[in-house]
Amino acid sequence: MRRLRAGMVGGGAGANIGVAHRYAIRLDDRYELVAGVFGSEVEAASAFARGLGLDDERIYADYEQMAAAESERDDGVEIVVVATPNDSHYAIAKAFLVHGISVLCEKPLTTDSASSADLVRVADANGAVLAVAHVYSAYAMVRQAARMVRDGEIGRVRFIDVEHASGWASTLLESTGHKQATWRTDPDVGGKLSVVADLGTHAYHLARYITGLEAVSVSAELNTLVPGRRIVDNAMVQMRWAGAIPGRLWASMAAMGHSHGLRIRIFGDEGNVEWSHQDPDQLVVQDAECRTIILSQGVRSLVEDSNRLSRVGLGHAEGFIEAFANLYGDLADELVARREHRPNTGRELSFPTGVDGLKGLQFIEAVGASGDANGAWVNLVGSEREH
Amino acid sequence: MRRLRAGMVGGGAGANIGVAHRYAIRLDDRYELVAGVFGSEVEAASAFARGLGLDDERIYADYEQMAAAESERDDGVEIVVVATPNDSHYAIAKAFLVHGISVLCEKPLTTDSASSADLVRVADANGAVLAVAHVYSAYAMVRQAARMVRDGEIGRVRFIDVEHASGWASTLLESTGHKQATWRTDPDVGGKLSVVADLGTHAYHLARYITGLEAVSVSAELNTLVPGRRIVDNAMVQMRWAGAIPGRLWASMAAMGHSHGLRIRIFGDEGNVEWSHQDPDQLVVQDAECRTIILSQGVRSLVEDSNRLSRVGLGHAEGFIEAFANLYGDLADELVARREHRPNTGRELSFPTGVDGLKGLQFIEAVGASGDANGAWVNLVGSEREH
Amino acid sequence: MRRLRAGMVGGGAGANIGVAHRYAIRLDDRYELVAGVFGSEVEAASAFARGLGLDDERIYADYEQMAAAESERDDGVEIVVVATPNDSHYAIAKAFLVHGISVLCEKPLTTDSASSADLVRVADANGAVLAVAHVYSAYAMVRQAARMVRDGEIGRVRFIDVEHASGWASTLLESTGHKQATWRTDPDVGGKLSVVADLGTHAYHLARYITGLEAVSVSAELNTLVPGRRIVDNAMVQMRWAGAIPGRLWASMAAMGHSHGLRIRIFGDEGNVEWSHQDPDQLVVQDAECRTIILSQGVRSLVEDSNRLSRVGLGHAEGFIEAFANLYGDLADELVARREHRPNTGRELSFPTGVDGLKGLQFIEAVGASGDANGAWVNLVGSEREH
Amino acid sequence: MRRLRAGMVGGGAGANIGVAHRYAIRLDDRYELVAGVFGSEVEAASAFARGLGLDDERIYADYEQMAAAESERDDGVEIVVVATPNDSHYAIAKAFLVHGISVLCEKPLTTDSASSADLVRVADANGAVLAVAHVYSAYAMVRQAARMVRDGEIGRVRFIDVEHASGWASTLLESTGHKQATWRTDPDVGGKLSVVADLGTHAYHLARYITGLEAVSVSAELNTLVPGRRIVDNAMVQMRWAGAIPGRLWASMAAMGHSHGLRIRIFGDEGNVEWSHQDPDQLVVQDAECRTIILSQGVRSLVEDSNRLSRVGLGHAEGFIEAFANLYGDLADELVARREHRPNTGRELSFPTGVDGLKGLQFIEAVGASGDANGAWVNLVGSEREH
Repeated sequence: MRRLRAGMVGGGAGANIGVAHRYAIRLDDRYELVAGVFGSEVEAASAFARGLGLDDERIYADYEQMAAAESERDDGVEIVVVATPNDSHYAIAKAFLVHGISVLCEKPLTTDSASSADLVRVADANGAVLAVAHVYSAYAMVRQAARMVRDGEIGRVRFIDVEHASGWASTLLESTGHKQATWRTDPDVGGKLSVVADLGTHAYHLARYITGLEAVSVSAELNTLVPGRRIVDNAMVQMRWAGAIPGRLWASMAAMGHSHGLRIRIFGDEGNVEWSHQDPDQLVVQDAECRTIILSQGVRSLVEDSNRLSRVGLGHAEGFIEAFANLYGDLADELVARREHRPNTGRELSFPTGVDGLKGLQFIEAVGASGDANGAWVNLVGSEREH
Repeated sequence: MRRLRAGMVGGGAGANIGVAHRYAIRLDDRYELVAGVFGSEVEAASAFARGLGLDDERIYADYEQMAAAESERDDGVEIVVVATPNDSHYAIAKAFLVHGISVLCEKPLTTDSASSADLVRVADANGAVLAVAHVYSAYAMVRQAARMVRDGEIGRVRFIDVEHASGWASTLLESTGHKQATWRTDPDVGGKLSVVADLGTHAYHLARYITGLEAVSVSAELNTLVPGRRIVDNAMVQMRWAGAIPGRLWASMAAMGHSHGLRIRIFGDEGNVEWSHQDPDQLVVQDAECRTIILSQGVRSLVEDSNRLSRVGLGHAEGFIEAFANLYGDLADELVARREHRPNTGRELSFPTGVDGLKGLQFIEAVGASGDANGAWVNLVGSEREH
Repeated sequence: MRRLRAGMVGGGAGANIGVAHRYAIRLDDRYELVAGVFGSEVEAASAFARGLGLDDERIYADYEQMAAAESERDDGVEIVVVATPNDSHYAIAKAFLVHGISVLCEKPLTTDSASSADLVRVADANGAVLAVAHVYSAYAMVRQAARMVRDGEIGRVRFIDVEHASGWASTLLESTGHKQATWRTDPDVGGKLSVVADLGTHAYHLARYITGLEAVSVSAELNTLVPGRRIVDNAMVQMRWAGAIPGRLWASMAAMGHSHGLRIRIFGDEGNVEWSHQDPDQLVVQDAECRTIILSQGVRSLVEDSNRLSRVGLGHAEGFIEAFANLYGDLADELVARREHRPNTGRELSFPTGVDGLKGLQFIEAVGASGDANGAWVNLVGSEREH
Repeated sequence: MRRLRAGMVGGGAGANIGVAHRYAIRLDDRYELVAGVFGSEVEAASAFARGLGLDDERIYADYEQMAAAESERDDGVEIVVVATPNDSHYAIAKAFLVHGISVLCEKPLTTDSASSADLVRVADANGAVLAVAHVYSAYAMVRQAARMVRDGEIGRVRFIDVEHASGWASTLLESTGHKQATWRTDPDVGGKLSVVADLGTHAYHLARYITGLEAVSVSAELNTLVPGRRIVDNAMVQMRWAGAIPGRLWASMAAMGHSHGLRIRIFGDEGNVEWSHQDPDQLVVQDAECRTIILSQGVRSLVEDSNRLSRVGLGHAEGFIEAFANLYGDLADELVARREHRPNTGRELSFPTGVDGLKGLQFIEAVGASGDANGAWVNLVGSEREH
């Protein structure tokens, strides 16, 4: 089958996330990277792009040029990955969406919910797919968790506890010239609520994805744990989910000693499930007898949503790159279905969309409003309509 | 050395906690149980007490009788364990304290901070020891954690996360005639904030004990997760500790699938420590390199506060009974020192006192006030003075 | 109920194992320690015994004196604990057994199988109980494992893997004056096969206890890992069990980094179970789907053989002292039944007897013979008869 | 840089291992798959190859044809992956090696040591690289372990314990038409010592790789655990390594409940390390204090041999595919260096070579000879020379 033509904006030399996207693209061989913008220094960016095998004519100086040129080509890109700092997502994504070119955007989708909503509208209006890189929802065992929780295997959900408490910026990294730390701790680029946008939205999406539920309101306490830092690097959030289900969310980039720190527990009235990014190929279930059952990726009795994502079988760990490739795989299913003018698989559990990105922004804004109001409960925009 | 003469009120037939106290009393052989009140049904209670080896004349019908009689004897009890439902602690404890008889009281100390403060005063005025059974602080590895955190081995504390999320009452146990569930879910006996009083105070004390810090204010969300229940069975609390340190506390008796669920993590600016009651003889440390170091009870390089509590050496697990006996041991050191009119050991880390019990009540009350005020931040009484 | 009158030979000042016995004796309050021999230095031994609450007249200078005197008393000891170095077990145990006084002997029962067989005969002939302190079989979760394996819950046993690989003597401790290391590494006291006698017999008994099977033959490789040591401190054994089931056993006192190191895995044709002394209140089961199920002490769905041994309930860890007390409890059931001339409980899973001790000696001897024969397969004495 | 031209023999439709090779090839983009033989059914094999993007003219009917044609082309393959059943490895590998075309062969290298030695000679004589797919040695944390052990961080090695105890064929899978089980349990294809060849050689190589030591002799016990099976499916091996170091190896394909089951522990006189394929991105170290230190992939303080293999950074798990790609990466370094007539990197820790494959065969043969001789100790061929 013909591979999907992909382009990339951002993620050039030195950008970890660009590397991860390209590993994911290559793994299952369903895309070919044919065009891109990889930085503002033309020489270096071009050399970098050539190293990726791009033709010179499809190495662009900026995204506007790329969008204009690619939308004119018969063999133009069908999907563009946006992996730039947060404050540029909106303009870049929109530039492609208006031409009907699909976009996979890094999170947070934009810097405010209005612009995110605009992207959702533009994508729909132009028949383009808008996806957001909440990659954690693509782990096989997260899919297993989602299926089990949504199908009632732990009974009715009664408590949701999620944390993305990383230690990556536990010191004043931004004072050392660390590239990612520099822009993420710049209020004008990463936003004042940086940790909520960067990590909190992952945690929030994961909770939504596994439970199939939406949050109604939040009460937040925002902190800057590292002296000298200009943004919020730690956020505690108490939540009320639909159905009057209480929950908590903790986002931190200063949890010293933690490497990554994404972990979720869902309690039902018949048991609970726990998934941790530290052992991503496991799902831990506890039943009403207080027995602990560890399910590993590839076990035969898992659900199809999980087993279909196993590449190399039981006992052979798959990791972050494979999860990222799962997201790309689900996205490819959608893109190919559209190309062939047929319905997609109809799976309930698939890739995160622009709507998920928009909800992330609504979450960030509610958290910020609550934090500003000394923890007063703030409704998420749109939550009334749905519940 | 002569053993300490102990009495007990409550903890009769069928009471788990009474059993635990008696195991702890026996283990190190520093006490002899010589008097008690073990229930309101005289026949049964007497039979029970005789089974414990008590002389008939020191088996009492009620605590007043016991306090009157024992305070008159030359060989009267030196310490009384109060293991009755919460609403009777105050009167019972006071009845002995006024006679200068020391008391080890189950938590919560009383049902409101005023009465707890009164007990503290009465104990002091009569030269009696007032201790509270926050037994978790007596685990060898909790002592290790406390020493490390207080000595700065994880740097300056920046975040405190503690939970006592048990699943013991995940269903409507009180409708089945379950004795403990019945009184703990009766607002008039266990209090409307039952889970905060029963489990939350353990978590709160543990955090105070390990860090040596005091909380300043709380923002709480209170829930009843089990339909039909009359009290709060789940509480989420966001906290501000002295020194502007943020923290969280979660207390639940409805965390289905959990057996016990006490766990604490302290993050500093140089690492973190985690202790869980599920593996109580371990302390997990993560350093700035993100290495995880597991320290087990009995390891030679542990601090004296921890190693002195090992009875049977490295590799031989000690559990709840041993921890309880540690508390009794520290209490015995104090009681014997007083008996001998000499100063006690001078250890910083010892048993929880009435002041700790009082602070537990202040915590419960602040949590309740915040919950009633939709999560508004409420200062703990007394917190201004100290910080 | 009247407590059993117990005596003790050995286990005096500085002996860890004596301490453990006395904790176990006290915990459940079914014995009273009334007589003993606690060392050859009369003054010190007497002071020690007085500290234990013994009357002067029942503090003896040697075991012969004690056996003579106690057997004459109406209130003489009913059970004697022998906790001396290996080479004295036989004479001491026999001195009491001939008078019909029961004995709980530390392992190995004696220094050769002939003397062990003699003790078994003498005990039987005199109506005394002979028990051996293979304490690990008394953990609640070992009982759970035994019940499950014997009842076929993992199908037919197909492989047995056990190790007691401790690191306690990983260096030349005996050169530092370390008391236990000194006698255990003296070929004349602990035996040349010291590690097999000390730790290997525990591992061997545990495997027999859980599976209910007997070993037929062994092929052994014996090593001295610590330079300068005079005894075997590491033994690898390949085994053939009844029913042509293969297995392995590894005993080491030089597994540097290990604290205790007892661990067993039993594989059946429908699953496996694993128990480790590091987490003694857990049993790990893996089923044919490769799901891992962790059962914890106190879980309601456990078998009666396990649940009856829980003192303080689910989520409250019990450890080595409690296991030791379990052994004492089962032994007490037997002793009381004999005292009252009624049959005992009829439980299949109970305390280890002299026959178990004898089988331990047969194992040691077969291992030694195989080691001397460069690993040739050597039958265990008695194994032909039984299989 | 120009990608290496790779070919493949075997690993066609339905072959797990072929899938794994191709994932590994794609991940780092240093190879392009341009030629191959993918099965004896021409139609199906061609369709499969076309699906991989091969040109028709380079899809071959058999390996002789492929070797002849590719060796004539200017753009012929530089490396051929051999992923067929064991009994064909020799002929296929030789067909390419004689033309100076490098080979990466699945294990075991051949079916006897003579033919393996011949391949080593042929490769050397023709300037070709011969590599063997012992992929586990390519995990970042195995490299960490190897570096630490070889550099003496656990002191002098004193005991080696390794097992590859899988449960994949715990039932009579071969009777169900399972393709891999069928050939692996056919004595004429997988060999009578199938489990030793398939899994035992992995375990053996891993032990050699981490320690840098060679085995001298073995004493083996061979079993068939699954009734009706025609080959050995369980092997216990006691080993003597160079320097009189004892060790054990257990290979099983019938360890019911295990998924993969590769695990190794190395004990030194200052500590031990343990690596398990179940958590491949961790290395567990225990020191002389009995502290347990868990090192995770990506931790800054790891050695360069480990850190250079991290693709997506600390906290982002990498798994089997990434390890396989590591092997391909090291092999690519060697192939490119040869292409460019310059020395390779000079790393001590790199990919497994034909000599490693040969040593695997020598191990299999010694194990078989010992098993046939009822466990008599048998020297590994070549072991005298080296030690």
